[in-house]
Amino acid sequence: MNRHYILARRPLGLPGTHDVVFREEPVPEAGPQQVVIRNLYMSLDPAIRGWMSDEPNYIEPIPVGGKVWATTIGRVVQSNSEDFAIGDIALGMNAWEDYSCVPAEQATKLDDTMGLPLTHFLGVLGPTGLTSYFGLLDVGRPRAGETLLVSGAAGAVGSVVGQIGKIKGCRVVGMAGSDEKCRWLLADCGFDAVINYRTCGDLETAIREQCPTGVDIYWENVGGETLDAVLMNLAEHARIVFCGWISTYNDEQKRPGPKNLWQLLARSARMEGFVIKSYVDRFPEGIAALGQWMGEGKIVHREHVVDGLENALDAFHMLFDGRNDGKLVVRIAEDE
Amino acid sequence: MNRHYILARRPLGLPGTHDVVFREEPVPEAGPQQVVIRNLYMSLDPAIRGWMSDEPNYIEPIPVGGKVWATTIGRVVQSNSEDFAIGDIALGMNAWEDYSCVPAEQATKLDDTMGLPLTHFLGVLGPTGLTSYFGLLDVGRPRAGETLLVSGAAGAVGSVVGQIGKIKGCRVVGMAGSDEKCRWLLADCGFDAVINYRTCGDLETAIREQCPTGVDIYWENVGGETLDAVLMNLAEHARIVFCGWISTYNDEQKRPGPKNLWQLLARSARMEGFVIKSYVDRFPEGIAALGQWMGEGKIVHREHVVDGLENALDAFHMLFDGRNDGKLVVRIAEDE
Repeated sequence: MNRHYILARRPLGLPGTHDVVFREEPVPEAGPQQVVIRNLYMSLDPAIRGWMSDEPNYIEPIPVGGKVWATTIGRVVQSNSEDFAIGDIALGMNAWEDYSCVPAEQATKLDDTMGLPLTHFLGVLGPTGLTSYFGLLDVGRPRAGETLLVSGAAGAVGSVVGQIGKIKGCRVVGMAGSDEKCRWLLADCGFDAVINYRTCGDLETAIREQCPTGVDIYWENVGGETLDAVLMNLAEHARIVFCGWISTYNDEQKRPGPKNLWQLLARSARMEGFVIKSYVDRFPEGIAALGQWMGEGKIVHREHVVDGLENALDAFHMLFDGRNDGKLVVRIAEDE
Repeated sequence: MNRHYILARRPLGLPGTHDVVFREEPVPEAGPQQVVIRNLYMSLDPAIRGWMSDEPNYIEPIPVGGKVWATTIGRVVQSNSEDFAIGDIALGMNAWEDYSCVPAEQATKLDDTMGLPLTHFLGVLGPTGLTSYFGLLDVGRPRAGETLLVSGAAGAVGSVVGQIGKIKGCRVVGMAGSDEKCRWLLADCGFDAVINYRTCGDLETAIREQCPTGVDIYWENVGGETLDAVLMNLAEHARIVFCGWISTYNDEQKRPGPKNLWQLLARSARMEGFVIKSYVDRFPEGIAALGQWMGEGKIVHREHVVDGLENALDAFHMLFDGRNDGKLVVRIAEDE
């Protein structure tokens, strides 16, 4: 059988088992020009929560009654396409399920995994690492000596953002929600300073202390009061790289925007959104750079693997209460 | 006597006669390297209201007890500087007063007024025109065929923004608060479409009707609900040129930010603040371009001249209730 998850209704707040429903169906059969992928791992990312809502977004939302989307990696077990043979490794935007039946053109074949774990292609060498790479370099445009402040710094995106910032010569300050995460950022990721936002007291003051010359680049993963605190600490000509607002994704009502947004004018600063799909043509460049830096030991990362598709919804909650340590993936099956 | 205005206290809401107080003092005497300027005209701009508040801003606020600032133009009547002779035309950031005594280096001498009215150098060839020029071209970066939406479109800045947009090949849509202003934008300024925001009904819908392919560039003069309505109509890779928030300057409490700011991410859009002082080195370029376009009849403008320094505070209120038609200046004295 093909176990899978359906978006039964649009969640209010954190999605529960009546919103995201675990079901079974027969294993699909590949139609013309289709492949069936036996999923081995899937990526859980905060953005998926956004796709469950019908707020206007960069993509149309997951339809009610449809399968919940995720990037997965697996092996082709049926193929009606010349581009895929049985056993090929295929990556794509699929769903929370055992078997994904998709048009071959929607799947990306990984010819050479360089001997790396497949999970890397869902994380540091996949959508999250590429988000860090293009967002920081293209939108943030770091210059040596600048101060880069990263929210969600211990997450899959934030930790790589900070390390690329170090490679580019920035002073890097990270915000995270536990002392253990902060220690990891300092000891292993080479951050210059950290702020535990749960224990630091007034965040605006804490940022001022750690970024005394102001924030030249702010990596925005969280939104809410954090953004307001950062806005009061911008340097002249600051750039805010708007990657996500994890603090708001489970809001039941749309909350007001940042009350300190005037600081964009006061500091001749820029806030800019971006979506990784704009950079598809440049993915090879990003993967090559990230792979090289990993090989040189300049980028470290952590993966948090949860076993079993049946545990996916609980695992998804970890992203919002901070229980995951590193890139969160679900192991759906053993690679045989 | 030197009539002048003091900021007696920080206003709550629209400044009244107990906030901005009309006084007299002896005419000042020029000290070493100083000049005394007999002011002929002064410029009234919404930004002055921001300088009266102690919110963190691009400049320190006007000190309580100090004179209220404005850009003025006048003739030198005393000079202790080799750079100025009696009778020279001098422009500068001075104050609401008859006579300004300033260091010569803070004044700009206008050697050649090209036979134009002096008021032009406070408006279309001065701070407001230069704001339009550098903000649109440097921050907005218009391309032919794009849709440019301008708020405060009948104002001194907005009307020139729209006309430069037309010169650059944009489709230009203006928002203004009266039918008369809208008619002027269509008939004289060459705008392609207009929205009377007071009578259009739902503004988000009205913008969608006038900008069916989305807003590529939004000139932000007003803030508040207008910004939220525009955010829901952004085109991909839109740019919001953040020039001011006139709707908020008299707020007694800080209001929440735009609730639709997520659209910056959804549309890979950018919101960027700027301040004209960053472009001082390029003013000659801007003045030359604006002067040429005026000569070619491609830029028209209106001036609203209020007579008498004693009427300055009432005139200032016109900016916030929309009673002025065009660039607002106060005539302080006749040029003899």
